[in-house]
Amino acid sequence: MPRTTGRVTMPIQEGIDEQIRELAQALGADAVRNSDGTWLPEIASELVDKVYSTYFPARGDQEWALAHPDTLVNQYLMSARVTAMGPGPLRIDVLEGYFREQFRPCYERVERFWEVIDRTSGEVVPPSGWSVNQATGVLTVAEPAPWHEYTVGFLAEQVWDTTQMYNYITNGWGETDPTRVKERPYDVRKNGVWEYMREALGRWLEQHPEVDVVRFTTFFYHFTIAFNSEGKEKMVDWFGYSASVSPEAIDAFEAEYGYRLRAEDFVDAGYYNSPFRCPTRQFRDWIDFQSRFVAQRAKELVDITHAAGREAMMFLGDNWIGTEPYGPYFPSIGLDAVVGSAGSAATTRLISDIPGVRYTEVRFLPYFFPDVFNHDGGDPVGEANESWLSSRRAIVRRPLDRMGYGGYVSLALEFPEFIERITAICQEFRDIHELSGGELPQDAPFTVGVLNAWGALRTWQTHMVAHALWYKAAYSYVGVVEALAGLPFKVRFLSFEEVLRDGVPPEVGVLVNAGAAGTAFSGGDAWADGRLAELLRQWVAEGHGFIGVGEPSAYEQGGTFLQLSDVLGVDRERQLTLSTDRYPNVVDEHVITADLRAPFDDGEGAGGDVYATGPRTQVLSYVDGTLRVAANAFGRGRAVYFSGLPYSAVNSRTLQRALYWAARREDLLEQWFTSNPDTEVAWYPGHRRFLVTNNSYSQAATTVRGEGRSWELVLEPMGSQWVEVD
Amino acid sequence: MPRTTGRVTMPIQEGIDEQIRELAQALGADAVRNSDGTWLPEIASELVDKVYSTYFPARGDQEWALAHPDTLVNQYLMSARVTAMGPGPLRIDVLEGYFREQFRPCYERVERFWEVIDRTSGEVVPPSGWSVNQATGVLTVAEPAPWHEYTVGFLAEQVWDTTQMYNYITNGWGETDPTRVKERPYDVRKNGVWEYMREALGRWLEQHPEVDVVRFTTFFYHFTIAFNSEGKEKMVDWFGYSASVSPEAIDAFEAEYGYRLRAEDFVDAGYYNSPFRCPTRQFRDWIDFQSRFVAQRAKELVDITHAAGREAMMFLGDNWIGTEPYGPYFPSIGLDAVVGSAGSAATTRLISDIPGVRYTEVRFLPYFFPDVFNHDGGDPVGEANESWLSSRRAIVRRPLDRMGYGGYVSLALEFPEFIERITAICQEFRDIHELSGGELPQDAPFTVGVLNAWGALRTWQTHMVAHALWYKAAYSYVGVVEALAGLPFKVRFLSFEEVLRDGVPPEVGVLVNAGAAGTAFSGGDAWADGRLAELLRQWVAEGHGFIGVGEPSAYEQGGTFLQLSDVLGVDRERQLTLSTDRYPNVVDEHVITADLRAPFDDGEGAGGDVYATGPRTQVLSYVDGTLRVAANAFGRGRAVYFSGLPYSAVNSRTLQRALYWAARREDLLEQWFTSNPDTEVAWYPGHRRFLVTNNSYSQAATTVRGEGRSWELVLEPMGSQWVEVD
Repeated sequence: MPRTTGRVTMPIQEGIDEQIRELAQALGADAVRNSDGTWLPEIASELVDKVYSTYFPARGDQEWALAHPDTLVNQYLMSARVTAMGPGPLRIDVLEGYFREQFRPCYERVERFWEVIDRTSGEVVPPSGWSVNQATGVLTVAEPAPWHEYTVGFLAEQVWDTTQMYNYITNGWGETDPTRVKERPYDVRKNGVWEYMREALGRWLEQHPEVDVVRFTTFFYHFTIAFNSEGKEKMVDWFGYSASVSPEAIDAFEAEYGYRLRAEDFVDAGYYNSPFRCPTRQFRDWIDFQSRFVAQRAKELVDITHAAGREAMMFLGDNWIGTEPYGPYFPSIGLDAVVGSAGSAATTRLISDIPGVRYTEVRFLPYFFPDVFNHDGGDPVGEANESWLSSRRAIVRRPLDRMGYGGYVSLALEFPEFIERITAICQEFRDIHELSGGELPQDAPFTVGVLNAWGALRTWQTHMVAHALWYKAAYSYVGVVEALAGLPFKVRFLSFEEVLRDGVPPEVGVLVNAGAAGTAFSGGDAWADGRLAELLRQWVAEGHGFIGVGEPSAYEQGGTFLQLSDVLGVDRERQLTLSTDRYPNVVDEHVITADLRAPFDDGEGAGGDVYATGPRTQVLSYVDGTLRVAANAFGRGRAVYFSGLPYSAVNSRTLQRALYWAARREDLLEQWFTSNPDTEVAWYPGHRRFLVTNNSYSQAATTVRGEGRSWELVLEPMGSQWVEVD
Repeated sequence: MPRTTGRVTMPIQEGIDEQIRELAQALGADAVRNSDGTWLPEIASELVDKVYSTYFPARGDQEWALAHPDTLVNQYLMSARVTAMGPGPLRIDVLEGYFREQFRPCYERVERFWEVIDRTSGEVVPPSGWSVNQATGVLTVAEPAPWHEYTVGFLAEQVWDTTQMYNYITNGWGETDPTRVKERPYDVRKNGVWEYMREALGRWLEQHPEVDVVRFTTFFYHFTIAFNSEGKEKMVDWFGYSASVSPEAIDAFEAEYGYRLRAEDFVDAGYYNSPFRCPTRQFRDWIDFQSRFVAQRAKELVDITHAAGREAMMFLGDNWIGTEPYGPYFPSIGLDAVVGSAGSAATTRLISDIPGVRYTEVRFLPYFFPDVFNHDGGDPVGEANESWLSSRRAIVRRPLDRMGYGGYVSLALEFPEFIERITAICQEFRDIHELSGGELPQDAPFTVGVLNAWGALRTWQTHMVAHALWYKAAYSYVGVVEALAGLPFKVRFLSFEEVLRDGVPPEVGVLVNAGAAGTAFSGGDAWADGRLAELLRQWVAEGHGFIGVGEPSAYEQGGTFLQLSDVLGVDRERQLTLSTDRYPNVVDEHVITADLRAPFDDGEGAGGDVYATGPRTQVLSYVDGTLRVAANAFGRGRAVYFSGLPYSAVNSRTLQRALYWAARREDLLEQWFTSNPDTEVAWYPGHRRFLVTNNSYSQAATTVRGEGRSWELVLEPMGSQWVEVD
């Protein structure tokens, strides 16, 4: 029996009542839920306070879906690039390379919604120049320019729901459960769907009195996933709006915004408005348009749920497009709660910081799926530890209200050491709540601003492709927000636009700009306007801090690549200034790099040589002819440069030191700071106690300093300890 | 005594006659020369057939230089970038950071020749907005835009000749020979210089009847070198024209070309028209203008030399600006010979391929200077071996007429093992001439075209900053020409402009485009014009080959970064297409990579991830999530991609294989090809003999194949062997 109970949601399923009962007791669970493809057993309500049920507004009723084939959700796709290998008509099979079980072309007003572009000249081929064979899906360009490349942006219909397709293929339902339906999604904007959705939800609520919390999974539009012709993932974008389109929506947009969106506005030359792309006006408008629409519709479903006396919880995933939780319309939905998956500290903060809901919940990894829960190399305990260790940093700074697990509990029950481990994790989670007594730990007296093209909309969501997946190109930047998610700073995500318009908010002490050149995170052509550099120079010189990571402020102009090279004291070599000799002023000891025991690990680095612009720049790490860390004074302010910052305990600590140094607050290195970077301390001044956590898998000795005193502690592997201060 | 004699030039000096006599015999030298700061001894003429003497047209007479202070050579410089740290006048000390013993500002018509630019807005500050204090060299911008960066492009005077300054500082003459003059250069365009130069040469020839060959070092304008305030090199550009300027020349240019050159046309935002920069029209015009002028003047000095019955030899170095040997005006100078320094196979070919002269000569390394010839870690034998091994590859393909060494022979005589080694090298050099009997070895039946912005003008000179110096950013590209310089191919350097105008020359079988994005070598905005991609696609598809290295055809446009991504089958990830999943088709065995025993070494690589665009691309090397070598069929043609190609024996061999494969001539792998990549074979069909060389420092066993036969050979370290074929 656990010491305390509550705050935990566990998945359940039919047919193993006794095991579920025991597990619920062990975990101290006070809520249960089903999953995609499992059903709630009868005993659910007697086990716990609250029963959640998944609810799929956009694919829950396949009988209805099959009866209304004109309601399929669309998706914008771009054909493969095809080169005209000489004169004569060019045939393009638009779906070549795509999964034909997922998509088929949508032929509604092809001349309006399809677009053929000569990618070599950049010219659009007018509809009179091409034709489509609707029997074969082949588009023919009558007279292409020989040796030019062509693409077709076209509307498709989704004939298989993305998440269900993923689950179906991942779990091998084709073999194990061949009678299972391949579910079709329906679009809330299409003929009769909305009326049906409202009515179906009301009926479902009536039919399921045992359900206390409706766990919407999610609302209407899935993030972008396309599979390839071999049934494998071809494209994934957690922020993709390509599957939120339809002739109806595009027409409505035109009526409201007064201009026509083109296929190219969605397929974006094949980049599909990836969040790494500097966003266009059209794409921003579309996000606004769909978010507003989804919020209105979702609110009505929430209202129906409330009217039936239930809570409405949103799963932040799957069909979450249009509900970006840091967008302006999200609070208006009126949700009670958001639940999301935690893959890291940053994604945990993404959930725990969401405004406008009563409570938040995180589903920890691993998901109880056979890819991890197998006796053939699967390591569920290892994954649970990793998930907990990375999320705990975030939870300490900003506790989530609830936690849980998901998937098929029958699989997890085959691993008793896993059950034992998550039992302990549930208790440690509750202890944080109990011992902090609802008090947030003390943060630094200044806010850290993360500056990019997206600003608050993508709070904690920078450099993300698929949710929390590791990407070689991105991890050296993801580390910045991952570190911040567990460090003692308030963090605000700011856009170039708002800073240009309103200036840097007064509470911000240090700005961070992290990213690769030409991306929304570094800024790309946002830096073309010299006013941005001008404003930031003045702001830093007046006594603030600036931290650049990778290719901050990168935009080739006026003889520099980094537009803030004077502030940062560094620039990036792109083989244009090799004529200039460099004599880096390498400084062996500095407060920023004091915890490094090996050369600073910059991951993939900035992808090339970085050099100090002059001897005033203090080079703190210099490896193989390129600078990795530098510090520079600028006016009364300070700047720090990192060529990359993949997450690690020592890199996180180095960033923390850099933030204090940049803000001229080195005194904070004595105030609630630990000697061992594997450990972190959270100070609760109201309760006069602190929590020390060991983020490593080894025993850790550490000294905690604060209020002029120090404590020598030894923490167990992954352990934590509360200490009272008299 | 050597087996044969001749073809060798050795440096001599006064005071060690007997040792010089012995050395001349051992080396088989038939010519002697002096160096900067040494004088020819009386015995010179009786030792050898020909006596060379250095001759410095632009600094040889310091008495005259001091008497004519208005003739100093100018140089365009850019001040440091200075940020206006608030409102109020901005003071810029233009020479800050420069070596004041090398430069002083030139105040002639400052409003015409100086230019102040706001680098943040890109605007030029009109002369009315600034003023210069000629006593201090400080320029004041009266009302700068606060927080903008400013630079001043300005004319300086060179008060110390660049090469003599370098020699003076490197040899420590300030301590060892404090009476030595710091030489001042004079500009052939300035008042009375030209008249003086002609007259002085005539007089000198009369006074030096012992001199057979006038070794001009060189003519008028030095390549760009600027030293910093600590007397160290600040900037070096072997191709720099910044020191070829003067008010006189710029006025003459304007009169002839009808437009005004600005300071910015020379300082180029601080890039100074580095050869890596995509060249501007203005810079090309300036090269043409100065080259034509220098050729005319140099021709007159050569004519004077010939009239006195002497030969005229040009040293390709120091003041060589305006005499680019592959430019259109060079042959008109009428030189007998060119001598240059060999730092690699490519720089050896740079000399040996020069058109329009009767003979060529290379000075091998090491130069007899105390930096190498010391008993404190100096390794003259090692450097001689390295120099010979790298140059020999080039010499076998295209023999130089003569070889030599330079510097202070007294230093070399302290190292008997060095003398022994170069004695052997001189003999091996002569043997190549004797046994090839003047026949060039057989090349592949197609020419390799190297495509970049410079074309023939910079034959064998791509990716060079300082002459043959290693640069981290460049060596992965230099390897391409270094390999080609010793491979059995005719090589032509082609510009985008001429290919667009005239098409690819018919003898070219494979085109190579190697370089980093945005450089003259990759092409930068040359690719903005889709006609270039169009033309090359057609050319490849018709059955030719294309080899891309690094970021070939890179120019972000139309959804791809590499504009020939369809031809190459690869593209470069820049964090904009991370949403797309990649499934590389990795091919384990391929004729191109058959000699690799370890993962392909791409040096610095392309600076990021490179991916295959689809399954048709054959990925031949894939390491750590990025592609290093790929092969792709395109129409009837073929393309090969390397992410980098630093020079090594196995990389050179891999390039050779790629060239054969791209040209669909894999049959050539059986025709005069060796099994061991450390060895190379040259076949002389006229003499029916071949030469095998071992480019390694170890014994090498190898099989030579040709004419359906094979020969098993074992070569000594660095050895070579001639084999007769009956």
